[in-house]
Amino acid sequence: MSVVTQTVSLAPLTSVDLELLLAWRSHPDIYNYFKIQSGPLVWEEHQSFWLKRTHREDFLILLQEEDQTRKVGSINISKLNTEYPEIGVLVGELSIQGKGVGKKAVRLALNRLKELGHNKARVEINSKNHPSVRLFTTLGFVKENTTSTADWQTYVLESIP
Amino acid sequence: MSVVTQTVSLAPLTSVDLELLLAWRSHPDIYNYFKIQSGPLVWEEHQSFWLKRTHREDFLILLQEEDQTRKVGSINISKLNTEYPEIGVLVGELSIQGKGVGKKAVRLALNRLKELGHNKARVEINSKNHPSVRLFTTLGFVKENTTSTADWQTYVLESIP
Repeated sequence: MSVVTQTVSLAPLTSVDLELLLAWRSHPDIYNYFKIQSGPLVWEEHQSFWLKRTHREDFLILLQEEDQTRKVGSINISKLNTEYPEIGVLVGELSIQGKGVGKKAVRLALNRLKELGHNKARVEINSKNHPSVRLFTTLGFVKENTTSTADWQTYVLESIP
Repeated sequence: MSVVTQTVSLAPLTSVDLELLLAWRSHPDIYNYFKIQSGPLVWEEHQSFWLKRTHREDFLILLQEEDQTRKVGSINISKLNTEYPEIGVLVGELSIQGKGVGKKAVRLALNRLKELGHNKARVEINSKNHPSVRLFTTLGFVKENTTSTADWQTYVLESIP
């Protein structure tokens, strides 16, 4: 029996990866769960979003299998100037969705938040995005009733483990 | 009135761009027009295809606007050991499809074929892919009746200009 070792890590996302991020964000299976996007993204908007980011860090999600490492998605922590920084995550390589890569990436993002001195986090999830709801609740995030709408729900983590 | 200068060029596609190529090839608007692919691509197949290529060259399509250059698609010439090398092209940045970038890229690929000593080229096009049919016929490609099926049609160029 052969066992494939899989390791997930994060690396800073830089401007050389903007085309890759655009391509991931342009897939309907991904942008359907975005709050502010209803179709393929235009480069100018994508770049403008990138240049205007503040109080935010963006990372590539790297997957190492055996001796090979590849880029499979991206994760960001934003609103770093608030008590509840926000997490955004996407696994762009569609065929590996649901295999725990996103969850491992979120754990690493939570570590990074702790490193920056944060103890709390929040995430907004499209209520139809059941895999994402499962991912975050498994990690201890709890639905915040007051701020939720039918389409979007806020989940908070009061104490990063 | 401001005029944006757009220049299309090709650069060799290397293994560092495989994730980007995978992301482009995983979009339904793109793979729906592929002959051998009916869903998002699995990394292992993608890499295996890459490693097994022979008699073929792959390029990134680069688009320069003002002082900025970005990767917007890919083009390949294959069957370079035959009299009629084949062209495959995709514009991965969906929002710029139909704006002449693919056509400019095909012209550059035809130049490359000439450089390699070829005088003829062919392309197989999904018969529903009207923009692609238009692109290649405008460049002088002619439908080859004998080898065409209902779904796929072969177009040939008997003399690269």
